[in-house]
Amino acid sequence: MTNRSDTQDEEIITAALLVIGDEILSGRTKDKNIGTIAEHLNTVGIRLREVRIVADEASEIIAAVNDLRKDNTYLFTTGGIGPTHDDITADCVADAVGAKLNVDQRAVDLMRARRPDMDLNEARLRMARIPEGAELVENAVSGAPGFMVENVIVMAGVPSIMQSMLETVTPRLKTGKKMLSTTLEVKKPEGAVAGPLGRAATAFPDVSMGSYPYYKQGNFGTNLVLRSIDEERLSQALAALKTELQNAGLLDAES
Amino acid sequence: MTNRSDTQDEEIITAALLVIGDEILSGRTKDKNIGTIAEHLNTVGIRLREVRIVADEASEIIAAVNDLRKDNTYLFTTGGIGPTHDDITADCVADAVGAKLNVDQRAVDLMRARRPDMDLNEARLRMARIPEGAELVENAVSGAPGFMVENVIVMAGVPSIMQSMLETVTPRLKTGKKMLSTTLEVKKPEGAVAGPLGRAATAFPDVSMGSYPYYKQGNFGTNLVLRSIDEERLSQALAALKTELQNAGLLDAES
Repeated sequence: MTNRSDTQDEEIITAALLVIGDEILSGRTKDKNIGTIAEHLNTVGIRLREVRIVADEASEIIAAVNDLRKDNTYLFTTGGIGPTHDDITADCVADAVGAKLNVDQRAVDLMRARRPDMDLNEARLRMARIPEGAELVENAVSGAPGFMVENVIVMAGVPSIMQSMLETVTPRLKTGKKMLSTTLEVKKPEGAVAGPLGRAATAFPDVSMGSYPYYKQGNFGTNLVLRSIDEERLSQALAALKTELQNAGLLDAES
Repeated sequence: MTNRSDTQDEEIITAALLVIGDEILSGRTKDKNIGTIAEHLNTVGIRLREVRIVADEASEIIAAVNDLRKDNTYLFTTGGIGPTHDDITADCVADAVGAKLNVDQRAVDLMRARRPDMDLNEARLRMARIPEGAELVENAVSGAPGFMVENVIVMAGVPSIMQSMLETVTPRLKTGKKMLSTTLEVKKPEGAVAGPLGRAATAFPDVSMGSYPYYKQGNFGTNLVLRSIDEERLSQALAALKTELQNAGLLDAES
């Protein structure tokens, strides 16, 4: 009899990320969040399947939210939840999920608790507008929270605040079986190892195989990275790849 | 009578960027190309409207190529043109534009010229496969070229090679009127300046206004960035914004 407590672990949990902001598209600001989020999700067992960056345009944000949230377990967004006129992410997400957007007393209380002396003017109160039915996503850096509504998680664009929100929300998310990976370094150029690698990849279609050539300090070679959620298949694929490389004279037998 | 030679300058030229690669989505590799391309396109007068990152999956790449190239003057891609089995960008772009993909003698010649001693094995010849009707996009780093077919420009993922291809292809592209920008630094928090900024933005809907709070070495403030292709409107908007800030007591009259 199968132990059913494993079920959640076997499920594949996917995510998309929507980065919102003219400043990224104009090159003025270099995004620092995509890499952080990609690495974090990989670690916790959520597969990031797509990232989009769009401008501060309501029609484009709403279209992207609808498109990305329907095909993935979760959609994360970063950016556009500050106090200024071009911070329209909350409006767009509320529109996409069909929820009303109002100043939320829980958010006001968090902001006041953090900065009792702050003038909660109209602009700052924009940051307390949360779609009805959303859970707040607190952060330890500034008072203003992000939120999670349905399967959409809305986070700040400032990296330190985003990271705090990501840590806050992660325990609330379903996570799947973790992706395992193993790396084989071969001191040969990518064009030489591509044939054996391709044969091993064909034999193990369920194991992802990537090659990453490097050139540093006069040495060159290729890191071959194998990834799978199944430990046994991963080690079988690694053995098969080594055999292919050895047969092609690209790897010593003892490697 | 209008001088018609200005026509091209007045046209708005747009672009999208498609980043292809599992390694970016898994967090293993941090993308370094998006910021470089965004900044470059902004400088030459091409407006980057959207970026997507997708995995090495043919159906996803083809769908994204079709989607992004139809709404923009140009679509740039990075990644997936190396020698290994998972380098499928050329195949996908050829499929999307309906062109045959064959080993191109011009590409083979470029690769041989760069590395006369190289074994052009089957894997390396993958890199010489170019869609019919495409122009090659040479690079000064490695021999293997990128290409431009219809409005799609296919570049390498390795940053130094990508940069060389971007420089090669730029003189062949239509470029529009350059985006001009001006920055006003205000030593007040974003939540304080948001009101005046919003009023100025409403009065100048054709001038993009963004705010970028900063906190460093105990000082805080907000950089207000105004952007427009029209120099006169930009300076009018800046004056209006200063007046709004002065009226709110947030900026000295002489600023």
